[in-house]
Amino acid sequence: MNICVLGGAGFIGSHLVEELVSEGNNVTVIDDLSNGTLDNLSNIKNSIRFIKRDVSNPNYTDNLDTFDVIYYLPCWPRSLSFSNPIRDVEVNVIGMINTIRYAKKTNTKIIFSSNSGIYDTSKIPINENTKDNPTTPYDLNKLTSEKYLKLYDVPNVILRFATVYGPRQKTSDKWKPVIIEFINKLSLGEPPTILWDGKQTRDFIFIDDLVEALIKVKDNEKAVGETMILGSGTETNINQVYETVCNELDVKIEPHHGPKAKGDIRRMCYTCKKANELLNWKAETTLREGIKKIIKEEHRK
Amino acid sequence: MNICVLGGAGFIGSHLVEELVSEGNNVTVIDDLSNGTLDNLSNIKNSIRFIKRDVSNPNYTDNLDTFDVIYYLPCWPRSLSFSNPIRDVEVNVIGMINTIRYAKKTNTKIIFSSNSGIYDTSKIPINENTKDNPTTPYDLNKLTSEKYLKLYDVPNVILRFATVYGPRQKTSDKWKPVIIEFINKLSLGEPPTILWDGKQTRDFIFIDDLVEALIKVKDNEKAVGETMILGSGTETNINQVYETVCNELDVKIEPHHGPKAKGDIRRMCYTCKKANELLNWKAETTLREGIKKIIKEEHRK
Repeated sequence: MNICVLGGAGFIGSHLVEELVSEGNNVTVIDDLSNGTLDNLSNIKNSIRFIKRDVSNPNYTDNLDTFDVIYYLPCWPRSLSFSNPIRDVEVNVIGMINTIRYAKKTNTKIIFSSNSGIYDTSKIPINENTKDNPTTPYDLNKLTSEKYLKLYDVPNVILRFATVYGPRQKTSDKWKPVIIEFINKLSLGEPPTILWDGKQTRDFIFIDDLVEALIKVKDNEKAVGETMILGSGTETNINQVYETVCNELDVKIEPHHGPKAKGDIRRMCYTCKKANELLNWKAETTLREGIKKIIKEEHRK
Repeated sequence: MNICVLGGAGFIGSHLVEELVSEGNNVTVIDDLSNGTLDNLSNIKNSIRFIKRDVSNPNYTDNLDTFDVIYYLPCWPRSLSFSNPIRDVEVNVIGMINTIRYAKKTNTKIIFSSNSGIYDTSKIPINENTKDNPTTPYDLNKLTSEKYLKLYDVPNVILRFATVYGPRQKTSDKWKPVIIEFINKLSLGEPPTILWDGKQTRDFIFIDDLVEALIKVKDNEKAVGETMILGSGTETNINQVYETVCNELDVKIEPHHGPKAKGDIRRMCYTCKKANELLNWKAETTLREGIKKIIKEEHRK
């Protein structure tokens, strides 16, 4: 298939691109490299076409090939969405509108990486019937993009991701994924900081499981027009993550403790029955296995 | 009070500004004149401060006074929202974000002119508990703007307008308000076109009634944080409008008939109990009286 991965140089995008290439697809990656890097694609750089463009520019689709499927992965970090809501609209909404108009013209299916944080989190487990209650510009703009896909009636699949983790994920001022933060610090012998009391929970999904679902979606006709949560269905608290990373790195370091992060939620877990059934898919990697793979691939031990 | 009316040179805005001036307020009008005109403000041009700026420009709030209240009336025409959805986002969302950030900094109340077309129209009468189902980018962006007001937690009142009509309203390629279209054509002795079978209904609210509610809202503490529909509560079909205009103009002209407009809805009527109660307000002008006033003010007869 001819496939375009927007945001394909990022953490999730680059893993997806590798898998698409190994399946034998013709893959075009478009990325503005504001967050992704060409390093992420170094293993497969000769097997793909890379174009450096910003999806929020209305001309970004000029002189593009046509595709069977477009994956929409660009996003502006959630943590910056209150401080720069305009850029959030540009990347998370205007980029999508530009893409929809191109997809409409070329009759292309869009697979959209949305966010499970859109849901009202007051009751768990959350499923696809839980009502929406976006609490940040990031989540609001993801929701607005979903609605644009419906308004313009392009073939689409909406995937709301749980908390994704895996090799190649980075921490920065913009993103602080907790598992990578713990691995990075602990592998250097430094104490990471556990916020709140560490008993807040998340539904962590390992990148390989996520990519498997993303790959399956593109060939699945039943999935068109559907919205699905992609998570593990397992609730894990931050203290458990900490303990697992310590065990796998074989270190014993006392963490620092910090206050509750603004807007942090207490518990999070998803029911992923819809994706299980529609895609015949299930996230199989345990947290321990996932952490082990990151440590191994990144030679942290 | 110090009041800013964004989009104050338009049809609705200019009527509001006149009333605010006659109440003795200090009024600043900001408008990019893309749709409004200075002619609309000619009666009161010496009593207001006019600034030509585009609210979608992030610098539009530079060197502005501070205000007690900001009215947000700019919008990009609904009829153009599918053909230019990016401009729709700029005016209807980014303009609002710019305004919210200024209001947050200066602790100013925003009174937002949203749209009753956001609601699911499958059951009437519609009230504020009817679920949302935006079917155009225009309606989606109005809804998104409402959600931004809540996210940023600025003092706000959201007003969802029914179909507003009155003197100074224009027809153009972008806007074709049916009452004005009928008055314009019939006063020239030309036959207007009735689309569909003319039995589709709307809830028409006369501009003076709407402005009365807008004025009342600004001083009403109970209204803060609320969403209200402003309509007449009366269902009128297009054939009745046609007949009333003919009677008031004292003409007898057979209309042309045309097909159903794309996306047109069959029936529309609102329950305006919330605004009636909260604002101690009710739209009192009958369709006949409203049409009579337009004809008189515009010397059409």
